[in-house]
Amino acid sequence: MNVRIIFRVLGLLLLIEGVAMLLALFVSVFYQEYDQFAFLISSGINVVLGIIILYLTRNARRDIGRREGYIIVSLVWIVFSFFGSLPYVISGAIPNFTNAFFETISGFTTTGSSILADIEALPHGILFWRSITQWLGGMGIIVLSLAILPVFGIGGMQLFMAEVPGPTPDRISPRIRQTAKTLWGIYLIFTVAETLLLWVAGMEIFDAVCHSLTTMATGGFSTKQASIAHWSSPAIQYIIIVFMFLAGTNFTLSYLAIKGRFRRVFTDEEFKYYGLFVIAFTLVIFAGLIISSNTGIELAFRDSLFQVVSIITTTGYVTADYLLWTPVLTVIIFALFFFGGSAGSTGGGIKIMRIVLLLKNSYYELRRMVHPQAVIPVKFNKHSVDPKIVTNVLAFFMFYFVIFGFSTVIFSMIEPDMESAMGAVATSLGNIGPGLGNVGPAENFMHIKPVGKWFLSFLMLLGRLELFTILVLFSPALWKE
Amino acid sequence: MNVRIIFRVLGLLLLIEGVAMLLALFVSVFYQEYDQFAFLISSGINVVLGIIILYLTRNARRDIGRREGYIIVSLVWIVFSFFGSLPYVISGAIPNFTNAFFETISGFTTTGSSILADIEALPHGILFWRSITQWLGGMGIIVLSLAILPVFGIGGMQLFMAEVPGPTPDRISPRIRQTAKTLWGIYLIFTVAETLLLWVAGMEIFDAVCHSLTTMATGGFSTKQASIAHWSSPAIQYIIIVFMFLAGTNFTLSYLAIKGRFRRVFTDEEFKYYGLFVIAFTLVIFAGLIISSNTGIELAFRDSLFQVVSIITTTGYVTADYLLWTPVLTVIIFALFFFGGSAGSTGGGIKIMRIVLLLKNSYYELRRMVHPQAVIPVKFNKHSVDPKIVTNVLAFFMFYFVIFGFSTVIFSMIEPDMESAMGAVATSLGNIGPGLGNVGPAENFMHIKPVGKWFLSFLMLLGRLELFTILVLFSPALWKE
Repeated sequence: MNVRIIFRVLGLLLLIEGVAMLLALFVSVFYQEYDQFAFLISSGINVVLGIIILYLTRNARRDIGRREGYIIVSLVWIVFSFFGSLPYVISGAIPNFTNAFFETISGFTTTGSSILADIEALPHGILFWRSITQWLGGMGIIVLSLAILPVFGIGGMQLFMAEVPGPTPDRISPRIRQTAKTLWGIYLIFTVAETLLLWVAGMEIFDAVCHSLTTMATGGFSTKQASIAHWSSPAIQYIIIVFMFLAGTNFTLSYLAIKGRFRRVFTDEEFKYYGLFVIAFTLVIFAGLIISSNTGIELAFRDSLFQVVSIITTTGYVTADYLLWTPVLTVIIFALFFFGGSAGSTGGGIKIMRIVLLLKNSYYELRRMVHPQAVIPVKFNKHSVDPKIVTNVLAFFMFYFVIFGFSTVIFSMIEPDMESAMGAVATSLGNIGPGLGNVGPAENFMHIKPVGKWFLSFLMLLGRLELFTILVLFSPALWKE
Repeated sequence: MNVRIIFRVLGLLLLIEGVAMLLALFVSVFYQEYDQFAFLISSGINVVLGIIILYLTRNARRDIGRREGYIIVSLVWIVFSFFGSLPYVISGAIPNFTNAFFETISGFTTTGSSILADIEALPHGILFWRSITQWLGGMGIIVLSLAILPVFGIGGMQLFMAEVPGPTPDRISPRIRQTAKTLWGIYLIFTVAETLLLWVAGMEIFDAVCHSLTTMATGGFSTKQASIAHWSSPAIQYIIIVFMFLAGTNFTLSYLAIKGRFRRVFTDEEFKYYGLFVIAFTLVIFAGLIISSNTGIELAFRDSLFQVVSIITTTGYVTADYLLWTPVLTVIIFALFFFGGSAGSTGGGIKIMRIVLLLKNSYYELRRMVHPQAVIPVKFNKHSVDPKIVTNVLAFFMFYFVIFGFSTVIFSMIEPDMESAMGAVATSLGNIGPGLGNVGPAENFMHIKPVGKWFLSFLMLLGRLELFTILVLFSPALWKE
């Protein structure tokens, strides 16, 4: 195994994280708050350590095999979260390391679960750093490094596939570096656009920047304890809905739309189902709210749409506490925990494409029962799907549910309430944010025991890397080669 | 479509049901109780109606196609449950038709959920009829008719496959009628053996018969309100454990064992996993009980083993209320709701073979990631599994979870508590019996609203016929032929 290249890539990425911390440093200098020193030190540690590692590994061979790929990607996310928690600890904003690590990995994985009980009390630099962690994690740390650094050579594709292991969306360009650049370009454009729109709609510019960073990442961290419910302005809420929806859309489609190829976008099957699920769930919850509460029609519609888009894209912002709705609506929201964004989006979870492939396969099976001799492959976007992909999706789905089941059992030893345990596990694995019961939208994760926080942190990572990248590390086959 | 043959088969089966009612009539005559008249009338209705139908359809063509097969099997179970509820209604034991139908279909599908709050108050004939419904349903109504009637000709296989649609276990004999006879023969032998053993162990002969009927069917109806907890005798409880385990084993293996071919039994992969799951879950729950309660070691072991075997085989007897255990153990029991007996057993649920195939496929997928060029098929009992079967199992699994999710949402409109709703849906779909929350082991289903009872009845039927037989009726492909 090429151990040196693993360290070399980690060193490079520490440098990137150090530079990202400088952004937060600027913010804290601008606001002249107490966290300046923390960012200076943290950034310094990252940069110095990164340079030392790069120097020590200067002779590393450039080849990155399958095994190195999975190890690098898994380690990157852990190392990033470890060093990313330094500003919280050093500034004293989150003095306890376990809490700081939980908050950081919840950031990088774009989960958005928080241990903070008084977010508004934090300095601006720290709030900005929280948002930046989500933004960096949203499009992928590896994808970022591919976009800005020409160093990886042949190993780039290996790393890209390990970070985005799902049913592969069409690549925009055959050259992986060009694809990464284009993805990050669109990501940046959308983030800037949302910032401007939120600002025009009346949000403070600082809040507008932070929320745009966490919307586009489908992250869900807010600068306010009440999340988006802090702003009662319908305009602000609708703007966020639109950008959450965009963030949950395959970025390749956004690229095509920007290029004017709308026909291709609206004939995309995953996009159609994504839209269909959003509309269907919104209407059902809207009807439920109208029947069961005295909320006005517009507000009921907005609350339904906002919560559905927020949960299905795995963003996790809230404008209404769905645990206070009539029970059936809470159950529907919980069912949405098992959906997720489109393939090639920043959304996590099981993902629309996988769900559609599985539903189609099930439906086709009924046809196969009627015509047992015929070979009836699953079709997607008018092409037959390779049975290998269907088997892969099946494997993913089974792992997802087994991990969900096992984790719920384990977590209910830590948190005895079954509903809370299921909620915490599902929201962490799906990178959503709020859960059920005592980790619902109006609560936070502070009261979870330390071992529980480490456990949920692991689930977030597992979910963000779509299970396989982590699981394959435990597979004997990988080490026997 | 050959409508006449559909009616003809239904007519025949009404006759069988009428004869079965005569057995209950003998019991009520023996005990000289008030239900004699009810059985006389009910049996009369069945027999007369059956004869009329047989007379009217005497010229029916004999051919049973795919479509007729699915329709016949689905209808048989509904018709059986409709006429099977007559004794309850006529005798006044369960005067309300909805309740009587629920109790009957819960019997035939071997679910074992009950609306009765005072079982001991019922006359012996009614108690016996409850047990008989489960026993008839356990091995399958169609399989029974194949065993005793030579009438179906070429359509027999069609019907057999529609009633037992799962991954087909090895058939014992190439001739379907011989297979059905052998299966029923073993079923009868085990039932008699259990009766004798329970009687020797100190159970009243009447209770011994009833419990043997419902054990071998993995049904779970008891003649006592407290279920098996009524008997504190360890001998009785261990006997029932052994026979529940046998009932959840592939009957082909029991046949081989009776023939002395033990080697074949113990090398069977499904059987090994079945044993493994039972042992693993028992040990975990046993450890949990020892840590969290003051129960003695033997009792803790027996309670763990009994509940695990009862739930995994989908029998549903109880000797301990698992809702009173420490929460994590309840969650583990709930996870067991999604297992089920072996293929070719009387147990319901997802079934061990499907779970093992899916787990294996997931595990193999990690290997496929490491060797993406290699073709790595799933192996079972040392043979490669046809990818078609894997896809079929995937389709089943997806349907199961989508139906579980949808039904929980719908049912939580009827029963607002999420845990109770999940429990009621999972226990009905898996043909288990007791659920969670207000339908837990110490409760009954009386308080569920009528619409909820009909809904759960439908789920029991869906689960008993392993989804596909019912679902294919809603598939346009079936009707387009």
